Amino acid sequence: MRRTRFDNEGCPIARATDLIGDWWTPLVLREAFNGRRRFDEFQHALDVPRAVLTARLKRLVDEGMMQRVAYQQSPPRYEYRLTDKGRAFWDVLAAMFQWGSDWLGADGEDPEVVFKDRETGRVVRPMVVDAATGEQLDVRRVRIGRNPAHAPAAPTPPVQP
Amino acid sequence: MRRTRFDNEGCPIARATDLIGDWWTPLVLREAFNGRRRFDEFQHALDVPRAVLTARLKRLVDEGMMQRVAYQQSPPRYEYRLTDKGRAFWDVLAAMFQWGSDWLGADGEDPEVVFKDRETGRVVRPMVVDAATGEQLDVRRVRIGRNPAHAPAAPTPPVQP
Repeated sequence: MRRTRFDNEGCPIARATDLIGDWWTPLVLREAFNGRRRFDEFQHALDVPRAVLTARLKRLVDEGMMQRVAYQQSPPRYEYRLTDKGRAFWDVLAAMFQWGSDWLGADGEDPEVVFKDRETGRVVRPMVVDAATGEQLDVRRVRIGRNPAHAPAAPTPPVQP
Repeated sequence: MRRTRFDNEGCPIARATDLIGDWWTPLVLREAFNGRRRFDEFQHALDVPRAVLTARLKRLVDEGMMQRVAYQQSPPRYEYRLTDKGRAFWDVLAAMFQWGSDWLGADGEDPEVVFKDRETGRVVRPMVVDAATGEQLDVRRVRIGRNPAHAPAAPTPPVQP
């Protein structure tokens, strides 16, 4: 069942949830960030049923997060590449990764996997900051509110009798 | 159906997905960050079926993200408060919020809602950076890899005949 009312809310969290809630989708994206492009590569890495993977890739293409590109003509073969919109989702995966790593691991045990700099091997810790100040976001100071710059559609004028 | 194999993977993204994929959970957390604590407040804000809300709040308590606290004795009444683990999830919501706001809105239209500083009213833009450098995470440089500090359990010694 698709929960379409989520799509209709103004809140971006609701809409991102709608996407993440599609099981496997964040993991397909994770593998795409790891450099995988072909159906069989995703399938092998995730051990996901083929029909499920087909549906998730199709949704990611429909959402504009991946692009389906032919890499061979006969027989036709396609690969899946991240678009700018898909690549921007890295921030969400990074925040999920760090929270999961900090709070879902076994007590007192170092996490099994980490973010690393590809070139230097240095462990990288993602942190969410206020872009203007570079300070960590303060839960107590930030709230979600109406955007003063948002102009709602003009109301329909009353029908003249 | 619970997909328990997600829980068993080492990747924190997989485990965070398991939680976010529980429909409504991020929205219940969003409302908690907005200051709501009582069942009826959540129910009213989200217009969610009561049985679903009961299940989501129970899971958040079981996960250690919220605490159920009595605020009245007779009749007994409880409210739900974020724990440190729950508050830390703010980073994930912030990243989801910003990505959704940048990429899921109507083209060329200002987003309906924004993050704001509670005191000054200034619009706050969450950004994910490398904690060590303060630089925005570079998708091309960061990869997910084994943690050199992680000590796997010692292998079982072979059985002596």
